[in-house]
Amino acid sequence: MAAYSIVLSQKDFVHRDSLAYPFEERGLQFGDGVYEVIRIYQGSYYLLKEHVDRLFRSAEAIKLSLPFTKEEVTQLLVELLEKNDMENDGKVYLQATRGSVKRDHHFPEGIEANFYAYAEDLPRNKVALQEGVKTLTTRDVRWENCYIKSLNLLPNVMAKQEAKEQGCFEAILHIDGLVTECSSSNIYLIKDGKIYTFPATKRILHGCVRMRVEEFAHKLNIPFVEEAFTLEDIETADELFLTSSTTEIMPIVEVDGKQVSDGSPGPLTKQLHAAYEDDAKITAEDRVTQMA
Amino acid sequence: MAAYSIVLSQKDFVHRDSLAYPFEERGLQFGDGVYEVIRIYQGSYYLLKEHVDRLFRSAEAIKLSLPFTKEEVTQLLVELLEKNDMENDGKVYLQATRGSVKRDHHFPEGIEANFYAYAEDLPRNKVALQEGVKTLTTRDVRWENCYIKSLNLLPNVMAKQEAKEQGCFEAILHIDGLVTECSSSNIYLIKDGKIYTFPATKRILHGCVRMRVEEFAHKLNIPFVEEAFTLEDIETADELFLTSSTTEIMPIVEVDGKQVSDGSPGPLTKQLHAAYEDDAKITAEDRVTQMA
Repeated sequence: MAAYSIVLSQKDFVHRDSLAYPFEERGLQFGDGVYEVIRIYQGSYYLLKEHVDRLFRSAEAIKLSLPFTKEEVTQLLVELLEKNDMENDGKVYLQATRGSVKRDHHFPEGIEANFYAYAEDLPRNKVALQEGVKTLTTRDVRWENCYIKSLNLLPNVMAKQEAKEQGCFEAILHIDGLVTECSSSNIYLIKDGKIYTFPATKRILHGCVRMRVEEFAHKLNIPFVEEAFTLEDIETADELFLTSSTTEIMPIVEVDGKQVSDGSPGPLTKQLHAAYEDDAKITAEDRVTQMA
Repeated sequence: MAAYSIVLSQKDFVHRDSLAYPFEERGLQFGDGVYEVIRIYQGSYYLLKEHVDRLFRSAEAIKLSLPFTKEEVTQLLVELLEKNDMENDGKVYLQATRGSVKRDHHFPEGIEANFYAYAEDLPRNKVALQEGVKTLTTRDVRWENCYIKSLNLLPNVMAKQEAKEQGCFEAILHIDGLVTECSSSNIYLIKDGKIYTFPATKRILHGCVRMRVEEFAHKLNIPFVEEAFTLEDIETADELFLTSSTTEIMPIVEVDGKQVSDGSPGPLTKQLHAAYEDDAKITAEDRVTQMA
């Protein structure tokens, strides 16, 4: 369960204890930056290209110039795992901010973005993937540009804490009853053989696993409908699940203390997760679901 | 124009170069914290109690336990100025985050909040206070809890940058035409002798100077109406002004390239600013407006 000792700072590999930021840092004072969390299975990245692409999209949306090309950062992220002899299931966290400089709201001039990345072990949550998780619902109070994976995560923190205090795995966010996503994952409802999820507008994060779910659905001939569902729809849902890079395709079996359908993971959710395990090249002995 | 060398970290006074934060810091990774900016005139705080009270209100709203009482932090902030022999016009910036700890959305346990404060010189912007400033309008895309003075400031950064790029001092934020506030200040419209401003709901910051403007208005027998005005109302406004701890009571003379009224600071704005200079004990030779 190591926190790996070599971390990436700008284009350099340094010891984790040597990386620190001054108090006048735009990440620290404004949350002025973007981030990614990338899944690793047995020492190899899953969806690396998708995450790097999104990092650049997020940076562009906040007009942040990254100090490298996509090819360069991809190469650096691969080296990060090599230098740490990382061979486990885990994740890499990375972020870029608008730099360390005297505080003023507007963009600083002549300051390079700060970038860092580090790896951690993260075992797959197999029990939850097999049994499903409990959730609660809470109001989505976030800003209008949730498609940007920014460091402004206070509303997400508050919602996740609310979930934790109620013994739940996640908080389902809604705007006046319309379900958008969860505090750190996308959410989907299955009804009469169709998958419903909030459309990929500015209001939600365009999840990398979400993109894959759409592909898996097409392959499995399950209609993927980008149409928001409501809190009321959940009461008569056949299945409910969430996705994120760390949680994979996770069945939801309870919402606000009420069972979803019969209270166990549904068949289409399992099929989708089998496709995920296929795609992520999870070894046979490590799988939660049967091969498709 | 010194950046003063002694800064406050927790309850200790340290050299500014020695204060740094690890990359696993909840301020840096989530914007999980709150802050204040307090005005200083000739080495003395203005509205110190109001700012300390709001710091505690913001902290409570995000369930952050501060590592001191109001009395303790007030005393520490006074000492900060003394230790730096601070005698100029300036400001103190201070912030508290939920601590430095391995990243996970929910609150960490057993971790103390991180707190720091530092002083800077900040001359009064007398030219702008006399001549007024230009502004533009842009959509308010912020979250629903802007009454919390949190470190999630990316939308404010983006709006301020937009203003700067257009040669403007501030960006006026609106929700579907309804004016809420500016990127880092409250805003007020004067029409037929009455002051209109967005009500102190969760949607705007409850500015310390805003509270004073309400008091000044009562003393001057100017009705203070907490009622939102629209972008359309601006076109026929008699006067428009903004307030913040660093900008005082600042006349707005242009919005989106169009003059406000006759394009010069209005008489009631000047009266209010005279009351401000009175209240802040600005010396006669330093005043922009005549004594009331």
